[in-house]
Formats: sequence, C-alpha cells, structure tokens
Amino acid sequence: MVVILENSATKEQIENVIKYLEDYGFQIHKSTGVQRTVIGAIGVQPGFDTRKVKILDGVADVYRVTAPFKQASRSFKEDKTVIKVKDVEIGGDEIVLIAGPCSIESEEQMFKLAEVVSKSGSKILRGGAFKPRTSPYSFQGMGEEGLVIMRDAAEKNNLVTITEVMQIGEIDVIEKYIDIFQVGARNMQNFALLKELGKTQKPVMLKRGLAATIEEWLMSAEYILANGNPNVMLCERGIRTFETYTRNTFDLSAIPIVQKISHLPVIADPSHATGYRDQVPPMARAAVAAGADGLMIEIHHDPENALSDGPQALLPEVYLELINELKLIAKAIHREI
Amino acid sequence: MVVILENSATKEQIENVIKYLEDYGFQIHKSTGVQRTVIGAIGVQPGFDTRKVKILDGVADVYRVTAPFKQASRSFKEDKTVIKVKDVEIGGDEIVLIAGPCSIESEEQMFKLAEVVSKSGSKILRGGAFKPRTSPYSFQGMGEEGLVIMRDAAEKNNLVTITEVMQIGEIDVIEKYIDIFQVGARNMQNFALLKELGKTQKPVMLKRGLAATIEEWLMSAEYILANGNPNVMLCERGIRTFETYTRNTFDLSAIPIVQKISHLPVIADPSHATGYRDQVPPMARAAVAAGADGLMIEIHHDPENALSDGPQALLPEVYLELINELKLIAKAIHREI
Amino acid sequence: MVVILENSATKEQIENVIKYLEDYGFQIHKSTGVQRTVIGAIGVQPGFDTRKVKILDGVADVYRVTAPFKQASRSFKEDKTVIKVKDVEIGGDEIVLIAGPCSIESEEQMFKLAEVVSKSGSKILRGGAFKPRTSPYSFQGMGEEGLVIMRDAAEKNNLVTITEVMQIGEIDVIEKYIDIFQVGARNMQNFALLKELGKTQKPVMLKRGLAATIEEWLMSAEYILANGNPNVMLCERGIRTFETYTRNTFDLSAIPIVQKISHLPVIADPSHATGYRDQVPPMARAAVAAGADGLMIEIHHDPENALSDGPQALLPEVYLELINELKLIAKAIHREI
Amino acid sequence: MVVILENSATKEQIENVIKYLEDYGFQIHKSTGVQRTVIGAIGVQPGFDTRKVKILDGVADVYRVTAPFKQASRSFKEDKTVIKVKDVEIGGDEIVLIAGPCSIESEEQMFKLAEVVSKSGSKILRGGAFKPRTSPYSFQGMGEEGLVIMRDAAEKNNLVTITEVMQIGEIDVIEKYIDIFQVGARNMQNFALLKELGKTQKPVMLKRGLAATIEEWLMSAEYILANGNPNVMLCERGIRTFETYTRNTFDLSAIPIVQKISHLPVIADPSHATGYRDQVPPMARAAVAAGADGLMIEIHHDPENALSDGPQALLPEVYLELINELKLIAKAIHREI
Repeated sequence: MVVILENSATKEQIENVIKYLEDYGFQIHKSTGVQRTVIGAIGVQPGFDTRKVKILDGVADVYRVTAPFKQASRSFKEDKTVIKVKDVEIGGDEIVLIAGPCSIESEEQMFKLAEVVSKSGSKILRGGAFKPRTSPYSFQGMGEEGLVIMRDAAEKNNLVTITEVMQIGEIDVIEKYIDIFQVGARNMQNFALLKELGKTQKPVMLKRGLAATIEEWLMSAEYILANGNPNVMLCERGIRTFETYTRNTFDLSAIPIVQKISHLPVIADPSHATGYRDQVPPMARAAVAAGADGLMIEIHHDPENALSDGPQALLPEVYLELINELKLIAKAIHREI
Repeated sequence: MVVILENSATKEQIENVIKYLEDYGFQIHKSTGVQRTVIGAIGVQPGFDTRKVKILDGVADVYRVTAPFKQASRSFKEDKTVIKVKDVEIGGDEIVLIAGPCSIESEEQMFKLAEVVSKSGSKILRGGAFKPRTSPYSFQGMGEEGLVIMRDAAEKNNLVTITEVMQIGEIDVIEKYIDIFQVGARNMQNFALLKELGKTQKPVMLKRGLAATIEEWLMSAEYILANGNPNVMLCERGIRTFETYTRNTFDLSAIPIVQKISHLPVIADPSHATGYRDQVPPMARAAVAAGADGLMIEIHHDPENALSDGPQALLPEVYLELINELKLIAKAIHREI
Repeated sequence: MVVILENSATKEQIENVIKYLEDYGFQIHKSTGVQRTVIGAIGVQPGFDTRKVKILDGVADVYRVTAPFKQASRSFKEDKTVIKVKDVEIGGDEIVLIAGPCSIESEEQMFKLAEVVSKSGSKILRGGAFKPRTSPYSFQGMGEEGLVIMRDAAEKNNLVTITEVMQIGEIDVIEKYIDIFQVGARNMQNFALLKELGKTQKPVMLKRGLAATIEEWLMSAEYILANGNPNVMLCERGIRTFETYTRNTFDLSAIPIVQKISHLPVIADPSHATGYRDQVPPMARAAVAAGADGLMIEIHHDPENALSDGPQALLPEVYLELINELKLIAKAIHREI
Repeated sequence: MVVILENSATKEQIENVIKYLEDYGFQIHKSTGVQRTVIGAIGVQPGFDTRKVKILDGVADVYRVTAPFKQASRSFKEDKTVIKVKDVEIGGDEIVLIAGPCSIESEEQMFKLAEVVSKSGSKILRGGAFKPRTSPYSFQGMGEEGLVIMRDAAEKNNLVTITEVMQIGEIDVIEKYIDIFQVGARNMQNFALLKELGKTQKPVMLKRGLAATIEEWLMSAEYILANGNPNVMLCERGIRTFETYTRNTFDLSAIPIVQKISHLPVIADPSHATGYRDQVPPMARAAVAAGADGLMIEIHHDPENALSDGPQALLPEVYLELINELKLIAKAIHREI
C-alpha cells in the first residue's frame, strides 16, 4: 500500500499515520519530497480495507500495491493454464470452439445439433437445462431431463459438454452428466455458489458480469481457485455501457489485458454480446483476431422456434462458413482452429 | 408491440410481418404514412422476445408497448404499497430509518448499537450475519449465532430487524429470527433465490444491482411478487459509472421515477452508495429531499475496529445530529421522521 | 509519482527504472519489501505522461501523487472562492438561484420571466442566445438581438445575467451585454474556447461534460484559471450512464467531493439533468440538501410554445412554490436562500 | 412517432392527445387494443421534441419512428460512400491504412516517418499540428510550421495527409496544406465547427466522442452533410465505461452496426482506444476482422522522446510486421490491404 499525504499534513498527522500502519504490522518506508510525503506500507494483509487509512487526517490518497487476486495472477503462476477435459485442451495453441443451442429443448434438437457441432470440428457442446431468465414468465429450462439428453447426444458424437449452474442445489445433478460448469454473468458474484464450485474438480467457465471490472472478475475466479479447483476459464460476453444500439458492448480490449495479468484461459461469447445473429460473425472473427483462447457460439437448426434466444442463434450452415474464416484468421496470428 | 417498417419495405415484406404477428395471436393495426408503415400488435404475450420480429426482413425497429413487469407497476396497483412489520409502516407518510452496523460482531456491540438506534427514534435494526465479500480472504460473518444476538438486542429495544440473505439455504434460519430479508446488490438477479423468497411471507428489501436498470430492478421485484409475496421494498444504493472519485454514483434521480411507475416503497442507502462517512450526511439529506420512503444508514460505536465497512459507518453522535437535520427536511416536503 | 515494480522484477530492471526517473529530474526513494519494490519519484513535472514509466520492463503500476489540477485545488487555495457579480455573491453562505428560459425568444417573454425571477427573490437571469442543438434542423437561437433583450429585461429588474458561449467568435458580443459566461457540457473540453475565456475577466460557469470525470472537469477549470481568470464556478448537470429511464443521472454525490478537493463554487442544474418538469422539484431539493452553492432552473410562462426544452421548464407558480421548500431545506443545513 | 397511452387513459385524454398531434400537422392512426390505445403520428417534423407529447396526461411512452439523422442514413443513400482523395479511395474494398506520429515535431521526424508509411504501403500520413491536451501545461503543437513540414514530407512520399482541426480559426490554414480534416473526440459536438467544415469540400474524419451514442455520432455527421460536404468518414476510438484497466473500451461492436444504418466509411483507431503499444496490434487485428474500412495507427521511430502519446506509438518495424498479419485477416474476409 502506498499512502500519499496532503501537502498540508502536519508532522503529527504523518507520525500518526505511520503508527497506525505499524500497528497493523506493515513495514514502513517514508519518502519526503519538497511538497509531499509518501509512505510505502509493505506487508500483505489479506482483505485489509484501505479506506481505513484514507480517512485518517492528513491522508490525500491510498493505493493498493498488490492486486487483490493471488492465485489468478500471472505472478502466482507464470505459465498459462491449460485445462484438459477428456481429449480437449483449453488454453493451448488451439482455439477451442464451443457451440450448441441456448436451451436444451428436445432429444431430436440436441442430436441434430450435436452432429453439426461434431462435423464442424468443434469440440464442446453447450446447452442450458436450468435457465436464468429476466422475466419470471419465460421458459425456465428442462432440468435434469435435459442434462440426460445432452449427455447422450454428446457421447454419440464424442463431444465434451458444458451447461450453466444457477444454484448450489444443482451442482450434484449437473456434475453427474456434464463436463464443465458454466457460471452466468448474473451469478458472477454469487460467492456461495463459487465456493461450492471450488470444492468440485470439474472445470468452471466463469462469465464476466455485465458491470464487473476485470479485477472483480478475477476476484470471483479467486473464490473458485482458493477453494481448491484450479480449472477455471473466463468468458467475456459483453459489458453494459451507455450505448443502446448494441445490446451489450463486447469488451474485446479486455482479452489481451486479462491474458497479461492472469494465466487463466479466456473464452469469448459473441452470441450474448451482440444478441443478433447478423452481428455474431464479425464479432466472432474480431475475438479470434484479438487473441481469445476459445469462442462460444449459439447455433440452432430452427431458430424461429427456439424456446430462448433464437434471434442470436446461427443456422448450422452459417456456422460452418464462419469457421472457415476463423481458421484463416487463427493462422494469421499463428494459432490453430 | 409497435413495429416500424423500413422506408424501403416491400408490400410482401409488410404482409409477411403481419402474418407472422397474427400467427402469434396478436391483433394487428396497420398505419401507412407517406414514408413508412407502422404496425401496432396488440395482445399480451408474456415473455415474447421482440427480437424475433426485429430480425424479419423489412423491419426497422420494434418497441414493446407494455412494461415487462406487471405486479410491480402502478397500473397494476394504483395505491402505494404500505408494508406493515409489527408496529412499523414502510411506504407511508413517515420516512422510516433503518440503522445498525454492517456486520454483527458481538453481543456487546449489538446491544450498544440497538440502544442507539432505539434512542434515536429509528425503528429498524440492521446487521449482517452472512456477508458477501468481494475477497474470499475477508471476514464472512457470524452466521446463526449473530442472528440470535440481533434478535435479542432488537427485542430488548423494541426494534424490527433486517438482515441479508445470500442463498436459499439461509432462508429458514433467517426467517426464524429476523423480520425482513435483505437481498444484496450482487444477488439482485439471483432468480432462484428470489423465487424462494416469493414463497415466504416476510417482507423483502431488494437492493438495486450495481449496473441494473430500473426496469431490471422492477423485474426482479416481479419474481418475488409473482411467487406470492406482496411485501417488497426497493433499495437504491448507488450504481456503477465511469466516475472513480466517488465509490458509486448514488442515483437519486431514480427515486421519483420508480415512485411514478411502481407502487413499491423505495429506501435509500447512502452508506454503501458513498463508502465514506463524511459523504453520508449530505447524501442522506439529499435522499430525503428527493422523496425516499426510508433510509438505511450504517453506524458503529467503534468504526476503527469494525470487522467490515468501518470507514463508512457513522458514529452514534453524528447519526443523532443528522437525524435532526433530516427531520427539518422531511417537514419541508410535508413528511415526517 | 509512485512506481510499483513486478514481484519478478530483476535488479537490473529496477536500476533501469530508477535511472530513467532520475534522468527526468525526479528525486528517488526506494522501498524494498519482502515481495515487492516500490519507488517514490518526487518532483513536479507538469504534463509528464506516466504511461512512459508504466511500459518500462519490470513495472507493474504507476500512480500520480499530485492531482493534475493546481489552481483549482483546495491545496492551492484553502478558502472557498466567492465570486462577486454586482451585488450577488456566488459561493458564500447564501445559495444562489439562477432562473429563466432555455432560449431567449422575444422581448415580451424575457420581460415577463425577468419579472418572475426578480419577484421570486432569485438574483440571476438565464437565457440562451446561441444554442447548441444536437440536430442541425432545430432552432439555433436569436443571437445578438436576444442578448440586447436579455440585458434590458435584467436591468429593469435589477438582475445579473448569464448566457452560453459556444465559440471564440461569440465572446466579444456576449461580453458587451452579459455578466457571466456559461460553457456548455459539450464544450467542456473545447480547450481553445476555455483559453480565451481565461483571458476575459467576467465569471465563467463551466458545465460538466456528460461523461467527464471530476478530474477532467477540474482540469478544464484549470485552463481558465491558468490563463488568468479566477472567477470560475462549476455546474453539475447530469452524467451519462447505462440507465435510460432517466434522461441523465444527476450526480449529486459529486457535489460534496468537488467541494472537498476544490475551492470553486458548485451550481446544480436539475432541469437539464432530468429533462422533465415533474422531476425538477425533487432533484432541486436534493441538490440543495446535498450542499450545492446554487441552482439553475429553467422556467417558462408558456412552456408548450417554448422554442426549446419546454418539457423541462417549470411554470412560474410552480417555481415560486418550490422556492418555499428550498428555503426550509437551506435552513436545515444552516444556509440561506 | 408512436404514442402509447396509459391503460387508465380516459377517452377525453386520448382525444386531447390526438388533437394536439393534429395541430402540429401529424396524420393520426389510432389502434385500440383490449388494454391500451396506441396512436401512430405520421409526418416528418424536423426537430420536433417528443417530450412535449410524453408529458401530456394519459401518455405512457413516446417513440420516434424515424431516425433523427437523414443524409447519414442508409435509407437516404443505399450505396456505401466511397471518398476519393487524390488516388486513395476510402470506403471501398480496400482497407485504408493511416499512420504517422501523434504530433508533428520536426522536419527530420516527419520525413523519416513519412518514408516508413510510404514503404509499408499505407497511403495516408497523420500528424497533429494543433493539439487538444487535457492539461494546459502540456505541449500544444507546432501550428502552421508543422503543417508545412507535413505537406512537404507527404509530397515527397506521395501520401495523402490528415490533421486535426480544433477551432474555426484553424480551418483556412489547414485547408491550405492538408487533404483531410480530423475532428477529435472532444469536439464531436462542437456544432459551430462542424457547420463550418460542412462548407468546405475537403473530406472530414469525425471521431466518436468518448460518451457519444452511435445516434449522436451520426447526428454530428449530419451537421457536416447538411451544410453541403458529403465527404464524411467516421472514426471509432474507444468509449468511456466503468472499466479502468483499459484506457478506453474499444467499441468494435459499433462497426457492423454503423455500417448497417449508415453509408459512411468507418475507420478504427486502436492507438487512442488502448493507449498502450502492446495492446495496439491485437486491437488493430480485431478491428479489421470486425469489418472496419480503415485503421489509423500511431507510429514513431523514437517513441521515448515523442512529445505526446509516445507510449501508444508503434515502432516502425512492429508496424510493418503488423501489416503482414492484417493482410491475411483482410483476405479471410474477402477484402484487401
């Protein structure tokens, strides 16, 4: 922590601040310039509230020196995390493609789409069984029945699976059938849920909250890591800004930043970021060009009759075409799809 | 729903849109101007995804005509909701004061503060037993033990109590000891939790998410109302904006708007909105002047040693002084404290 | 400036950073902790781009120690600035009321409204002669003719006047007739204009840009101050956020903050912040309760036929009623109107 | 305009609204549903303030049917605008590269960099002579002397030139030496400046304001178009959001949207969007992949000693390498660099 004192801070105030910090066990380094005194307070105090120092008399500003996340940071683990699920590697040179419908709707639908996913060379099948809906009057998902369908469709097509978990009570049943847990944007700071997922060993994909800073996102990852599960991947899916022409603002600038400060893989979700199918391909391409470690894309063979988010689902043939472009872009930046 | 067609929409496209809407059971009114055709689609389809229409050929824009919340709206219930808890009324002419520490820390602390709350004429005691903390390394609350302490302190001082519920598993134990459930900002869209709270009959105070629109906030209230619990009050506690000098931006402009479109009482929380004790009094005064139905303010007799959020807690004597100012402001707008 | 080094920074990298800073004339204080080294670089280098240090090898983060604004800061001038215009004082104990129409439209209109302003006890008359309009197809103002009308209406009613200046070419003509220059939100960073206004001696009211941080706002004030004009007052008029139910988010939390870090008076403009007349009174009351040094409120005797912003103008009788409430609130916080 | 009435609107209120609209010359279509009445008001009234209708009794909501911009819209001009400057085409199949230093600093610097730009195959040279700086204490540019240098350097290397214009008084001198005017983000709503640029015939590149919606951006383009200059290109350069790890949030999702609703070319500026040189290449690649019609990138042969924005400038060799990647990405989406 670095403490900047007011120009007008008295000697007594400065001494008081130093004593205060020493009482908390910090090691103190004082620098006195012509105008100001700056105090470096060294020593890690997990969870120390720096506002306590900021409100002391004579203090102008306080900066934390260490990032509040530890296990999620590059200084904790220099090598990029590669998560292995069956024969799929997430975070390696290959860019991973995750595809499937928003909601699991029927056996026919899932088998049809799993085949598309498999034929396209994508390796992970997505599908929601428990759905978080803004309106209590919307379709809420097929539940366990859907999970069984997804598992069967995936097995037949040799795919890894991912589905969203919304509450602690769903962890057991999902773990039984599915390979990767997804935590949705609205649950990014559902700490009780994160803690429990930290106690499982299956990988977790943690979506960024609509208004979550990169730091908060990594702090939420920290909840999972600190509870014992090292297999966390992040997922950028758009943030909320003042702009209303776009559904969300897809924060691609976050991708290289997160990769610099953290070792965790970063997936991008252009479907939820944009909300409209005609904007998915340009944003999928941009995400690969920006360096994402994977993409999650919603597809549907009959989007008109999809039970949720049909307007953002790509038709299978559009998805296949898009993959061809993505392969060339991956190549341009020395990666593979 | 109102559908605006492109200037260039063909007759066939327009007919196609009309047929599409009729198939969904909407009743159609077409208006043709010199430049454009506008279609009014009347008939309520709960949860209908308007994007389905927006992506049809020839469609320029689509607007929902009805607000997506129902039971939370003024058109559903014209009279303001007044929630009665013991002898306290929330949402009436009197502005309700809720005060207490951030976290329940000990018997001594709670009894001391409950006495302050009672003497100040405030009627509701707050205190957290289960704490949502951004960092997994911070104090996580006293749990049930804390609830017992709070109940005892409140009973001795004839106070109503409120505490935060973070997950479904905590509902039963909280219901046993406490009068009002608080849902925190991070859980505003934890729909599973909201549904369960809808099945209880105790009042729920729903905090606005950091980046939640007013509409989403009311939709979350709708989850509780639609599941059978009519006793919902809202709580504005600051939103996230680009400004970093302030911890949050306290959105007081939301208060008169929410009171116009909804019948639910609105509480304001200047402590979390500002994060620093010196900014609490001006914002508390502003919230009363803006028309809030109540205030929630953190107090602590020894903020320096508080286990959480000490820097934003008012000392008891500052709180008492503030109340005197608030009484005069309430009078100026023909209300009481 | 405080420079935080990476945990993994090598001795050579640290020495390189120190040499770099010394070459720029900074005085160096190095603090070495168990995990990290922190360097304090003391010495003011106006306009130094701290990113230059941030990109050096081994550097984790850099913080500026001094605020970039000088003359606008409380450490430059401890006493609050009180601006005197004729017999009006802005920034003193009395809260100043500025009222009038959005646009100057006719002699009849201005004389009528100037009389209302005067009778209400308000001291400053507002009115736009050069109008910044988002659309090139909207009314653009009466120009000099309007200024003459406003001056005459003000003189007859013993009022001080304020009007918006949009470009350098308008400064001379406005200076001839009007007492206070207003710089609009969209021009807050029109630095060429600010410099020229710094060379005049008439007071300037600087509105906050829609997305301007408090720091940028004060930096723009600095442009005027640094060019020789000490008579600057600030005006909060709402910022842009994700919320769309409100026109802008009125950032009342900025008021106590700005008053803490700067000595300049802060005016609040609830008319532009809300955009609708029914929301002006609650927000005007809240601004006074939050500690604003003045209010600017749009009024019109015939808002229906106003040439601009009629929907946010108060009728004269509503304005008079509001003032009665504001007086009581001012009293509650030991100020006067 | 579409007017939605309250469920509870009385017959009299509805008739009153209709009469009101008819008095303004609108043609009325009334649709009455079970719950609500919806009124379509057809007929273009440029600059009509829809809030006037919103505040009428019985009105729930009002939506504009036509976009407020005209000449900037695709419905005004279906074909994409291609701007020709000398032998360069902006908005065609080829993606245009604009490169050069932030500020013009010396003859040596400009000739060196112009040569790099030319050798790289880029066609437009950038460089600032009049600099908008947040701080009044920073370098403010070389002025006309710089323009002469840039013209000479460009001529020698057969390049087209672009520079920023900050005020009306600079238009003449810039027009004398330079091919394209750039309007900076802070001046996006400097309407006086836009009007004057509309009267010139040289192309204008209009940067998006930090907090400007897409609609406001196009409305500002409309100011230039409506005053007679059809050669407008847009430039996305990052918007302001709550995120602080990134300097700005580069809004790439805006690119396909703007290209859908407008015919104007869209350039992307990853240098200002990110502010740090290591983030420029991934964001440049992403912008091309998202479909930008051009890129503007800052380069410097000695960024350490650049007088402004050195930390975001690419070294010439990095720029050349980046172009190789960009060419492959352009090919992947069937365009050329």
